[in-house]
Amino acid sequence: MTKEIIRQLDYIFKPKSIAIVGASNGPGKWGYRMVNNPLTTGYRGAIYPVNPTEKQICGLPAYANVRDIPGDVDMAVMVAPAQYVPQAMRDCAAKGIKGVVMITAGFAETGAEGKALQEEVVKIAQAGGIRFVGPNGMGIYTSAVNLSLSFDAAPRKGKIAFVSQSGTFGGMLAGMAAAKGYGLSKFVSIGNQADLKAADYLEYLADDPDTGAIVFYMEGFKDGRRFFEIAREVVKNKPIIIYKSGRTEAATRATMSHTSSIAGSDRVFEAMCKQAGIIRSYETGQMFDMAEALVSMPLPQGNRIAIIGSGGQGVTISDNCELLGLKVPEFDEETKIQLKKSLPAHAPMPSNPVDFAGGTRTADDEAKVAEALAQIPYIDGIITNMPMYRGWGGNVAAAHASIEGAEIVAGIPKKYGKPVITLRWRAGNGDIAQDIVRAARIPAYDTPEQAARAMYALVEYARIRRALESEPIGQKTAG
Amino acid sequence: MTKEIIRQLDYIFKPKSIAIVGASNGPGKWGYRMVNNPLTTGYRGAIYPVNPTEKQICGLPAYANVRDIPGDVDMAVMVAPAQYVPQAMRDCAAKGIKGVVMITAGFAETGAEGKALQEEVVKIAQAGGIRFVGPNGMGIYTSAVNLSLSFDAAPRKGKIAFVSQSGTFGGMLAGMAAAKGYGLSKFVSIGNQADLKAADYLEYLADDPDTGAIVFYMEGFKDGRRFFEIAREVVKNKPIIIYKSGRTEAATRATMSHTSSIAGSDRVFEAMCKQAGIIRSYETGQMFDMAEALVSMPLPQGNRIAIIGSGGQGVTISDNCELLGLKVPEFDEETKIQLKKSLPAHAPMPSNPVDFAGGTRTADDEAKVAEALAQIPYIDGIITNMPMYRGWGGNVAAAHASIEGAEIVAGIPKKYGKPVITLRWRAGNGDIAQDIVRAARIPAYDTPEQAARAMYALVEYARIRRALESEPIGQKTAG
Repeated sequence: MTKEIIRQLDYIFKPKSIAIVGASNGPGKWGYRMVNNPLTTGYRGAIYPVNPTEKQICGLPAYANVRDIPGDVDMAVMVAPAQYVPQAMRDCAAKGIKGVVMITAGFAETGAEGKALQEEVVKIAQAGGIRFVGPNGMGIYTSAVNLSLSFDAAPRKGKIAFVSQSGTFGGMLAGMAAAKGYGLSKFVSIGNQADLKAADYLEYLADDPDTGAIVFYMEGFKDGRRFFEIAREVVKNKPIIIYKSGRTEAATRATMSHTSSIAGSDRVFEAMCKQAGIIRSYETGQMFDMAEALVSMPLPQGNRIAIIGSGGQGVTISDNCELLGLKVPEFDEETKIQLKKSLPAHAPMPSNPVDFAGGTRTADDEAKVAEALAQIPYIDGIITNMPMYRGWGGNVAAAHASIEGAEIVAGIPKKYGKPVITLRWRAGNGDIAQDIVRAARIPAYDTPEQAARAMYALVEYARIRRALESEPIGQKTAG
Repeated sequence: MTKEIIRQLDYIFKPKSIAIVGASNGPGKWGYRMVNNPLTTGYRGAIYPVNPTEKQICGLPAYANVRDIPGDVDMAVMVAPAQYVPQAMRDCAAKGIKGVVMITAGFAETGAEGKALQEEVVKIAQAGGIRFVGPNGMGIYTSAVNLSLSFDAAPRKGKIAFVSQSGTFGGMLAGMAAAKGYGLSKFVSIGNQADLKAADYLEYLADDPDTGAIVFYMEGFKDGRRFFEIAREVVKNKPIIIYKSGRTEAATRATMSHTSSIAGSDRVFEAMCKQAGIIRSYETGQMFDMAEALVSMPLPQGNRIAIIGSGGQGVTISDNCELLGLKVPEFDEETKIQLKKSLPAHAPMPSNPVDFAGGTRTADDEAKVAEALAQIPYIDGIITNMPMYRGWGGNVAAAHASIEGAEIVAGIPKKYGKPVITLRWRAGNGDIAQDIVRAARIPAYDTPEQAARAMYALVEYARIRRALESEPIGQKTAG
């Protein structure tokens, strides 16, 4: 039913050839980066710089007008100044270009005059059969064809799609996600949403095979009703996470001048997310922490979590799990007796969280405990240390145990169908152990708060899926 | 009045010579690390390994007993097994050792037998005039004499003292703080607090010239009343930040088995912090984010913050400031007209937060705006981008502007007496600019949430100081 959007947006997210309208040889300029970035980060399609006076740009032949380009062009990146954009869009239509990523600023965000210009551009696009991203955005990244306009260095590939209403800040957030080791399938800086709106991207990403979770940074919606209607269908197959800014008065003021949309009431937004089955993020960094778990782990059957954590780490993970509504159930006596066998002699009778009480246990002991916990019927998920911190001072046997432990932990999700979340350990020999765990796509976090929140996201999305499955499609819930 | 504690704890935190009782040649063992870590991380005092059978440990001559050591010994690090500790402590007393850092586990945390053993050790220490850290801890770090027992690599030196009830997790938190670039003056893993308790460390650190802010990770207090009484005096000169775990049922269960103290009601704790003027941290990482600002920036006169942030970044910083009770006041018309001169032509009339609306402004423009904001009488503090992200694609002029901008930003706190908090930018040429800003000790954060919370800590501590100054010393507030 919605497949028209796929046909249209594939020109933008899977282009075989791109033209850069307003390409430039000036380092640091957008017209330069839009040629140089695809050229240096792995895009294999044709790149056609367009500039009225230059003969070459970044070593590629330049054309005075898109209509002069000899081959077909799937998509144009628009960086020409605003006043030239209407004519350039007419030229794109004449050339048969079907998708445009409009970087150019100076439209609706600047006032009445810019708004009129933007409306003119939308009309030209509609008449010419062009769909476009922006204007006033920072471009896109798409792993499907290794095309990075937004990032000077291509991000790590992965299953997270990130749609951002803020360009610069969106790029910054994506950079932080990359620094944490998370991978992206798409990045879209949606700008003023003159043509394509948040709901359109959502509709497209719902069927994108590269995307496992969809993350939005939003300030205000232009198509709120449609967005939430589509979202409610999408979450039956893929999780959606939203961070929405503009929760306070000052932020609302800033939003108005920023992308010419008005932040709605935060409480209404909260209710709409609940209704649609969208997971809300309350800190910017948490969006990706949660998405990383959702694209890699099986969904838990319930909210009962077992924790292995050294001392205060276990305490703090427990705290955060319970504050987020997860359960950290106490073990039965038989289980305790079994677990005790893997603990050092001086450790007290095990409890949940399991504390190894310092000392002489090895990483594979911890991993064996993790596997034992995964077999308890009333445990739905595990949070544990990453088995990578043994081998202090070059202890080879300990380092080896760490590798064995990593293999055990890496096998748990497939073997028992239960999610495993790990905490990174900064010290130690852990490279090999870490690689093993990562190869199994076990998420690793730096803090107890991140780990607990990642598990919360899995539990919450599983709950949403079950709730939606139990009611007829299309029927609204009461609240 | 409290100076006895300084005389006592200087043996531990400024030892001229240390003995390691239970030293070992086994890599990865505590007895090995306690010799190797001081040896390889810059400690310049004498190191005496003690072991009944070995002749040499880590290349140093070993002694069968501390009493055999030829020179004076200020402090002993105890890693001998628990059953040998009473005799070893008697030997320490006989040798005239005044301070001990007890790593050994197997005391009160293991049950009744261990508790009796611990009480015996306390009695021996008291009779021998020894004060001791632990047992069941992970040692200390003290920048005063470059002594690192806890960390295999010495942490960055700085003004933050960190006292942790959890050893392993405390070390992990300290490692995260170091990774963020924050510096430590002290780290103490307080273990079971058999002798020295949280309040003792607080009393000592209050007068420690190396320490500007005191950070606690606590699970439960053994000396709560005394701690909060001392805290109320200390905060007149130095800020105290506490993260307390054990906020929920599961965590309380974990705490009991962990360090044999019982987590009190969270609400009571909250009230006691307020009464004492302690700043509470609700996430582990936030302790250090806040402390870093407190050790480096002047205190603001009020809670009115001006923000420079690109698009969504400014929006999100504003959101977080207002959620924390800070004000982001709108500018008067005259100020707006002045600020407009530094903005690109297409930018809208400036508002707070100031948005440069993308485009062609340079880093020194942003810095000049920051300086203009610092001169507004109704602005108490500034949050801004770090001026380091210009020079995309090798633009030298832009990179130079970035350096000029950094110098302006670096000068603001001294010139205007107002704090500046910056947000890091991942991309760009910023190394030199970043060095300039860092040399001025301007804190830099990765996320809007961290930046807003750092400013909150400054505003809140300034408020606490003013509140305490306005009432006679020793008089209790009503609530």
